[in-house]
Amino acid sequence: MPVPFDRLSAVRIVLVATSHPGNIGAAARAMHTMGLARLVLVKPRRFPDPEAAALASGATSVLDRGQVVATLDEALSGCVLIVGLSARPREFAGRVLGLREAAADAIAHCEYGDVALVFGTEMSGLSNAELARCNPVATIPANPDYASLNLAAAVQVACYELRLAAGDASVWRAPRFEPASFDEIEALYAHATRTLADMRFLSPQMPRRLLPRLRRLFARAALEKEEVSILRGILARIDQIMDRR
Amino acid sequence: MPVPFDRLSAVRIVLVATSHPGNIGAAARAMHTMGLARLVLVKPRRFPDPEAAALASGATSVLDRGQVVATLDEALSGCVLIVGLSARPREFAGRVLGLREAAADAIAHCEYGDVALVFGTEMSGLSNAELARCNPVATIPANPDYASLNLAAAVQVACYELRLAAGDASVWRAPRFEPASFDEIEALYAHATRTLADMRFLSPQMPRRLLPRLRRLFARAALEKEEVSILRGILARIDQIMDRR
Repeated sequence: MPVPFDRLSAVRIVLVATSHPGNIGAAARAMHTMGLARLVLVKPRRFPDPEAAALASGATSVLDRGQVVATLDEALSGCVLIVGLSARPREFAGRVLGLREAAADAIAHCEYGDVALVFGTEMSGLSNAELARCNPVATIPANPDYASLNLAAAVQVACYELRLAAGDASVWRAPRFEPASFDEIEALYAHATRTLADMRFLSPQMPRRLLPRLRRLFARAALEKEEVSILRGILARIDQIMDRR
Repeated sequence: MPVPFDRLSAVRIVLVATSHPGNIGAAARAMHTMGLARLVLVKPRRFPDPEAAALASGATSVLDRGQVVATLDEALSGCVLIVGLSARPREFAGRVLGLREAAADAIAHCEYGDVALVFGTEMSGLSNAELARCNPVATIPANPDYASLNLAAAVQVACYELRLAAGDASVWRAPRFEPASFDEIEALYAHATRTLADMRFLSPQMPRRLLPRLRRLFARAALEKEEVSILRGILARIDQIMDRR
């Protein structure tokens, strides 16, 4: 059973002392694409700001409802789980999880109350004192030689993992049309066998490799009614051409 | 066994007809954070461009080696798997996968040759003709009311999934110091039992709930030698205070 989807509404995205308002806007957009709505800004350098609104693109609703607070403790008040994002190892970290595990933990805790994901500044991330308020610490697997994700990019990846942890398997599906029946498919293979033999492409005594390969190919494709018609139309046209010779 | 890590070097990130050079730079940075290096640009509107370099931040090596080509077919030449990203449903899509499955498929194919992930324009994504060259089509689970990820954000999420599919479980770990031994931990519990009883916090006849809860708490924490010392120091200090009364 997928976890109820509205758990995402219990998640606060907390940005601490963000320098560039553009990053705030881009983070809001990233949140909105994944269905998260609660942005909390701790002492942003400039907010509100036209650059934030520009980078938010269509996601201004998240910005408009964004809450500005003076301290991290205010941002975290009432939370039952606080996940601190950190790219670099810290000496006094307690429990450190990969982002995927941390997202699962966060969604599980949404049953009990609000959950916060906390992101530090663009230049240096969260301070040790800030990180000491977080449990677990989450880290995004990255290139050890260059682990510096842009702030909004980190928010995007984190919100994506939260959405998947909340049970979104709702990718759009390839459209399917009416499937061909067993009899239609077997009639196609029979027709193909005749025509390929007439073409002397298939020796009726040695059909060993070719027909099983064709069956395998079309089995993977799971033929539709109309596709069988198209293929039989092609075969019929070949039959015609050969009759005329 | 994790898949060999260098499979990521077989992956091309193909951006088709990108409008904003800033997005090319941000995509290069996103790639570099996840250890991907091969960027192919199909008819970019402006490239090279100082804005691309600015947004690439430290990841200029990816930009510098970026290849510009005139057609999508050129970009895909030699690839054994071509994954096309598309947010919106397309009538003639063949096989559509969620991004996570598509990333696993891509990394599996790296054994046989190059693999491409193809991203369309900022405004409208890939055209139907471009998408027809891709199999599978990959879609990023998103808010159905606002699925519009920024181009570089989509590249970030995709490269993150590729890195995890390639076997990166290498999150940094919380530092651990020398663990306490069984005897040290049992001596701590014995000491705590005595002190708590002296404090009349624990009735020696009714220790039922408290001690199992404390054992459970410290078991989860997996005590270190030095932590046992600190806790016993606190207990000893309490003992002292009570002796003095």
